[in-house]
Amino acid sequence: MPYNLVIKNGRLITAHTSYQADVAVQGEQIAAIGNDLSGEREVDAQGLYVIPGAIDGHVHLTDPTTPPPYRPKADSFAVGSRAAAFGGVTTIIDFVQPDPGQSLIEALDQRQKDADGQSVLDYCLHMNLRDPDPVRLQEFPLVFARGIPTYKFFMTYEGYRLPDDALFRAMEAVAAGNGLAIVHAENHLILQEFRRRLAAAGKSGPLWGPAGAPAIAEGEAIHRALALALLAGVRVLIYHVSSSEGVREIGLAKARGQSAYGEACVQYLVFTDEANVMAGPPIRSAVHQAALWQGLSNGSLDIVSTDHNASNRERPDQVVGASSIETRLALVHQFGVRTGRFSLNRWVELCCTRPARLFGLSHKGHLIPGYDADIVLFDPEKELTYSTEVLHSAIDYCTYEGITVKGTPVMTISRGEVLIENGQFVGRPGRGRFVERSFD
Amino acid sequence: MPYNLVIKNGRLITAHTSYQADVAVQGEQIAAIGNDLSGEREVDAQGLYVIPGAIDGHVHLTDPTTPPPYRPKADSFAVGSRAAAFGGVTTIIDFVQPDPGQSLIEALDQRQKDADGQSVLDYCLHMNLRDPDPVRLQEFPLVFARGIPTYKFFMTYEGYRLPDDALFRAMEAVAAGNGLAIVHAENHLILQEFRRRLAAAGKSGPLWGPAGAPAIAEGEAIHRALALALLAGVRVLIYHVSSSEGVREIGLAKARGQSAYGEACVQYLVFTDEANVMAGPPIRSAVHQAALWQGLSNGSLDIVSTDHNASNRERPDQVVGASSIETRLALVHQFGVRTGRFSLNRWVELCCTRPARLFGLSHKGHLIPGYDADIVLFDPEKELTYSTEVLHSAIDYCTYEGITVKGTPVMTISRGEVLIENGQFVGRPGRGRFVERSFD
Amino acid sequence: MPYNLVIKNGRLITAHTSYQADVAVQGEQIAAIGNDLSGEREVDAQGLYVIPGAIDGHVHLTDPTTPPPYRPKADSFAVGSRAAAFGGVTTIIDFVQPDPGQSLIEALDQRQKDADGQSVLDYCLHMNLRDPDPVRLQEFPLVFARGIPTYKFFMTYEGYRLPDDALFRAMEAVAAGNGLAIVHAENHLILQEFRRRLAAAGKSGPLWGPAGAPAIAEGEAIHRALALALLAGVRVLIYHVSSSEGVREIGLAKARGQSAYGEACVQYLVFTDEANVMAGPPIRSAVHQAALWQGLSNGSLDIVSTDHNASNRERPDQVVGASSIETRLALVHQFGVRTGRFSLNRWVELCCTRPARLFGLSHKGHLIPGYDADIVLFDPEKELTYSTEVLHSAIDYCTYEGITVKGTPVMTISRGEVLIENGQFVGRPGRGRFVERSFD
Amino acid sequence: MPYNLVIKNGRLITAHTSYQADVAVQGEQIAAIGNDLSGEREVDAQGLYVIPGAIDGHVHLTDPTTPPPYRPKADSFAVGSRAAAFGGVTTIIDFVQPDPGQSLIEALDQRQKDADGQSVLDYCLHMNLRDPDPVRLQEFPLVFARGIPTYKFFMTYEGYRLPDDALFRAMEAVAAGNGLAIVHAENHLILQEFRRRLAAAGKSGPLWGPAGAPAIAEGEAIHRALALALLAGVRVLIYHVSSSEGVREIGLAKARGQSAYGEACVQYLVFTDEANVMAGPPIRSAVHQAALWQGLSNGSLDIVSTDHNASNRERPDQVVGASSIETRLALVHQFGVRTGRFSLNRWVELCCTRPARLFGLSHKGHLIPGYDADIVLFDPEKELTYSTEVLHSAIDYCTYEGITVKGTPVMTISRGEVLIENGQFVGRPGRGRFVERSFD
Repeated sequence: MPYNLVIKNGRLITAHTSYQADVAVQGEQIAAIGNDLSGEREVDAQGLYVIPGAIDGHVHLTDPTTPPPYRPKADSFAVGSRAAAFGGVTTIIDFVQPDPGQSLIEALDQRQKDADGQSVLDYCLHMNLRDPDPVRLQEFPLVFARGIPTYKFFMTYEGYRLPDDALFRAMEAVAAGNGLAIVHAENHLILQEFRRRLAAAGKSGPLWGPAGAPAIAEGEAIHRALALALLAGVRVLIYHVSSSEGVREIGLAKARGQSAYGEACVQYLVFTDEANVMAGPPIRSAVHQAALWQGLSNGSLDIVSTDHNASNRERPDQVVGASSIETRLALVHQFGVRTGRFSLNRWVELCCTRPARLFGLSHKGHLIPGYDADIVLFDPEKELTYSTEVLHSAIDYCTYEGITVKGTPVMTISRGEVLIENGQFVGRPGRGRFVERSFD
Repeated sequence: MPYNLVIKNGRLITAHTSYQADVAVQGEQIAAIGNDLSGEREVDAQGLYVIPGAIDGHVHLTDPTTPPPYRPKADSFAVGSRAAAFGGVTTIIDFVQPDPGQSLIEALDQRQKDADGQSVLDYCLHMNLRDPDPVRLQEFPLVFARGIPTYKFFMTYEGYRLPDDALFRAMEAVAAGNGLAIVHAENHLILQEFRRRLAAAGKSGPLWGPAGAPAIAEGEAIHRALALALLAGVRVLIYHVSSSEGVREIGLAKARGQSAYGEACVQYLVFTDEANVMAGPPIRSAVHQAALWQGLSNGSLDIVSTDHNASNRERPDQVVGASSIETRLALVHQFGVRTGRFSLNRWVELCCTRPARLFGLSHKGHLIPGYDADIVLFDPEKELTYSTEVLHSAIDYCTYEGITVKGTPVMTISRGEVLIENGQFVGRPGRGRFVERSFD
Repeated sequence: MPYNLVIKNGRLITAHTSYQADVAVQGEQIAAIGNDLSGEREVDAQGLYVIPGAIDGHVHLTDPTTPPPYRPKADSFAVGSRAAAFGGVTTIIDFVQPDPGQSLIEALDQRQKDADGQSVLDYCLHMNLRDPDPVRLQEFPLVFARGIPTYKFFMTYEGYRLPDDALFRAMEAVAAGNGLAIVHAENHLILQEFRRRLAAAGKSGPLWGPAGAPAIAEGEAIHRALALALLAGVRVLIYHVSSSEGVREIGLAKARGQSAYGEACVQYLVFTDEANVMAGPPIRSAVHQAALWQGLSNGSLDIVSTDHNASNRERPDQVVGASSIETRLALVHQFGVRTGRFSLNRWVELCCTRPARLFGLSHKGHLIPGYDADIVLFDPEKELTYSTEVLHSAIDYCTYEGITVKGTPVMTISRGEVLIENGQFVGRPGRGRFVERSFD
Repeated sequence: MPYNLVIKNGRLITAHTSYQADVAVQGEQIAAIGNDLSGEREVDAQGLYVIPGAIDGHVHLTDPTTPPPYRPKADSFAVGSRAAAFGGVTTIIDFVQPDPGQSLIEALDQRQKDADGQSVLDYCLHMNLRDPDPVRLQEFPLVFARGIPTYKFFMTYEGYRLPDDALFRAMEAVAAGNGLAIVHAENHLILQEFRRRLAAAGKSGPLWGPAGAPAIAEGEAIHRALALALLAGVRVLIYHVSSSEGVREIGLAKARGQSAYGEACVQYLVFTDEANVMAGPPIRSAVHQAALWQGLSNGSLDIVSTDHNASNRERPDQVVGASSIETRLALVHQFGVRTGRFSLNRWVELCCTRPARLFGLSHKGHLIPGYDADIVLFDPEKELTYSTEVLHSAIDYCTYEGITVKGTPVMTISRGEVLIENGQFVGRPGRGRFVERSFD
């Protein structure tokens, strides 16, 4: 009896090996990996890489509940998830941003409403906590029970940041549920001080560069976050590491045996401070960029995500955030694999397999029977030059304008459904589901 | 159409994940990994681990060409490979030991005759080089062409050891063929000096302990081997690391970016110098043993093998080498996984997956379609207490006498043929094949 | 023409060598080091060590301006400096503690009044800053001009601590004057959290042990202080390091080339948490103590001081602070030198020479012509068992009760005046002077 | 009663501090350091540095007993010691080079005859051992008794080198006498191999560069020498470290607590491989040079010597060894202190104080009463441009030709006798004495 769908003759690239095989899909799952499998529909992947769908564990799609100036303005779940699918992504993880004082569950319900029926991809949510009041932590078990074991905390940004004691208590609550604490780590008061000085010098505005956010202030906060996590007994992931200091601190913590992890975001890997691309933490000099690549190569850093949250540009010379949701997989292939920085297997590990494990997605990230049939066909020879026309974000410019990649996704399959084919979106709008996660 | 053989309902443990699936075998290869696969024969693996067959990259079966006192005396290819099969091993790698002056190819032909028609398991051979004459290196391309990309060199043992310049030249020749250099690293002159002193004190004989082979003399030679390998541009594996100094040197070389690897042998992991088990290098104190376990856990060491080469015992209180060929998989499970030192996945990596990659076995070590159907079923609940009666070596004693493991292999399949089943060997004698290897 | 005073036949122990020579004093200075020097008064130091007077860079004598509960209650300048002199100390450094809002200079004037005419020893003052208002920093040049280049900042204690931005600004102001920043580094919010929990469990009160101040929270704050100092470009000294984490962070900063220094206080070296001696940060377990000794030996830590600030005991089983002002030199000799942890030279370096350089005392700390004739004769054979009777503090108990040292100071000379002789104080009360310091 | 000689008004630079004082000499010793000292002769050192006489622990003056091609050809004891004196050196340490089979004591007697009555400076001798026969070690106690506690061993050079076991035994014998083992560490067989290849390519001759002596082969041998020394329990000094690998290994050994030391020679600090200055080990690239300077700065390396052993030049484009005996002090001042690499104090430590302690010169290296009056006046403002005319070696060229130093010695005093004054040698020829040394 033939399977529903078989990807024939492709080269499977997993996090650990590469081999020729067919992948059979039955319903929403991978049913078999084998030779000479036959399907009702058969896709010839001769010459293509067959990889697990990429997972972007760090996106900000439009969210009316987030107060300005940090409100995600770029892409709705409908538009953003569709763009991601074009880029070989099959799962995105966005955020619940409860207001201080608001019930976490109420905010979760609200946020799911933004996504349900909108997202074409499966999606998850990290729970953000902005409220230092210990009473909020009482809701954590309910949040865990809703399939959310990952919690995001800020050490900077007024209205977002938790002071150290609240951060520590929150980490304990995450540990109690066997979850993962995620931290945006920069020293708030030091950043404020530097920006005050910039502002006093007439360099005001919501955007800033390395001059307003020294690398030492990031390294410091990362060390602090790791120390508090160690004290709380919680696994911890540092988001968007941007400095050699940060890479060093995570590497040292790992060497001491701590369950500490680091994320790089693709814009920090492609650009340096000369490119005038705005981000927080800032995109730094080439020395820091080299440290990020080295960290990805030697294991100090664990995953590559996007922090996708771009806005339309305000000044012609500035790029307000990076529109990476569609470009990450190809860019990491281009600048990581083609340059010899690491292997095809490490590329799959960084973009697909490791994020699945790190974020508790128990049935994604591997090409394994019983796992969700989230499959991407990647043509290593196909060239693409990025531009606003070519990409599918709603943003009115393209951060990676003019960059040519050799190697790009050509088919994206989510739970057995072909979403992208022949350069077209062929999936059902709003078909994506909220995915419950756990580490048990 | 049903497959020839399907392992049903087992829990697949790979180097990187664990999941429930069926494994289908067609002919000699794995044909598919999937759900609800059906076969002419179906084996129910409910409650069992399904893992890639273990690979023992370091065994010495009887070899008449090796001069005493180091001639392997224990088990013939027929007996030894059968014992290994009982222990969940599906591939063994032994050695060609050309006499100085002898053609390497001639010795290889000879050695294959020892094994062909004898071994029940697939086998490979490392080429040993005892002859420092550069003329011997001219044969390396021929040896590579015969599927032997791994070369073993001794830094100690009279008649075996290569001086540093010959070792360096040989490493260059291995590098030229894109091979792996393997080194027994101890400082020969220092060991001789210490043994001379022991002998002068009436402590003579071919056997010695830590007193005759200081850990510093091993650490020194490992550093030297790594330095020469770096100079020669060759990948290098240090056999049977026995000291904290050795683990440290390999870890430092890795941190500096060198392609340097380390092997632990199981007897060094189970015993300390209090056990009076003879080995070279010697089995050392508990501090050194702890360093070995830590090295396996943090990645300084890469594989666990056996150096199986025991002889009948000469004195009732001594154990002349360790008969580990049958016990390794279960012992590493017992003392590595059950103690919490590392995960089930790391266990499979150390015993099965990593040896395959490290030694250039391109179609073994993974449970992947197209790979050899070398499969082991491991019952994590089954207890076994080791004794001469229970094990299948020809040696007249059992090194691990009285040790009880919880968890032991219950079925061994090699290229689709069931070799061990219900505690019986059911395979065809002499069915094993010489496996050609390469790193390309 | 004979010198005023000559110390004859002693063994000079300097930070770097040991030798036999006479030391001649003329007026307040050392006039010559030589052989066969003759003096109006000659002291025979045969069999004795002749060392530079010890410097205690961290004492808290009674200070009415410090608000409770941290107000130093132990010894006045008159009593405390006399006790110190008995212990071989010739310079003490206390603190100015301006109230928030108060002028630093006004507070300095006040504090000098406490000491002038009271101290029998030369004394210096560190300037404390509790006020985060940047306006206070405008007074720093005036404070520098008064001979105070060392500034103490707290990261914990309500009413004392500076938030990170104020700390950073203050460090910049210290850097601008080429001074030294000194930090009490513990994570305030984390300590508060732990004490709140202890209090909720009925373990309230101003005193606490390691349970209320985790080592990780100290290591974290030390890392933070070092990072801010690096950013501010200021030399930084961490006071009373009490944890292995702290020693590690300072060692790492030094290895990275930072001008970072660490102080150990003697009570942390003699006691562990089993002794119930109260201190902040707390006295920790033997593992931490071992790290402190190792840090002193390998250079991660730089000086030994006292933080002398004991109070009368409130409960019979508790020791409220350590009365170390008189015992440090002998205790470090006993537990550092006699145990073989380091040499006599390192002992002199830690207690006398290095504090002089680190705190900017340009004419103290060496036995060199032109330097102040601050000289101590130390009898390495003389035994002393500590008790309240034997010591000269006003405190009603003796922290080191019952501890016997072999080796104790027998004569203390300050600027050429003999203060202690034959177990008696023979100096003029209130003769001590305020010493201006600088690093230029 | 006035002293014989007083150096007035100079600035004393010691290894640890700098201060203004007079230095009084009585007979051969320093009698006093003090103010307002008066002498029969008074030398005004206003504006000059007064430092301990430099010690060159590594010179090869003409020695007929050394077999070619390594026989020192440059300068006799008479000429060489006079040149050294011009350079601010007051003690030189040369070598006894017994033939294999020759009695060490006999060779020592012979060598002393070369020097006695010839050297204008005090001199010492290291004992070299080329004979691997253990019987030679029986003479070590006699050699120690003659005041020679420092033993030099070669790991390379045919006819000189000791195999590892002989080296280990010799180190044990040095340890038994509480001596210092000194090692020229390069991997002999690897160097031979590389030179054979160079020779086969027509690049023969006794001279070679980095191409014939890879840095890895030095790093390897240094690690081996350190390991053997650790096993033998002996203090060990590595001569003329030339590679970053070597600096690293010594630094690592120190961090592990070993009594391991490293020497840099001045030509490696001034030149790179672009200068075509011949040395063994070779002078390497700028990266290695930077590692040497860093090692001197951070303490991985301990002293600077010369290995003075130049010969007349054979080809106009080659410099056969470096004539450093007269230039070291000024060159290290120029390139170490003036560039800001380290302080004046570290300069004195590296050239004067540390060599004295490391080689067991108990009465030299400090400006301390009772020590030998070996004193140098160094004018930091005086400029000198090196040339054959300006220097005093017998060699027919000047390695440092055209290099201008600002700062040069202007007076050299040895045991109270002025040797160099106003650019003239004013001492008695042959006045130098053999200095017995020990570490007790």
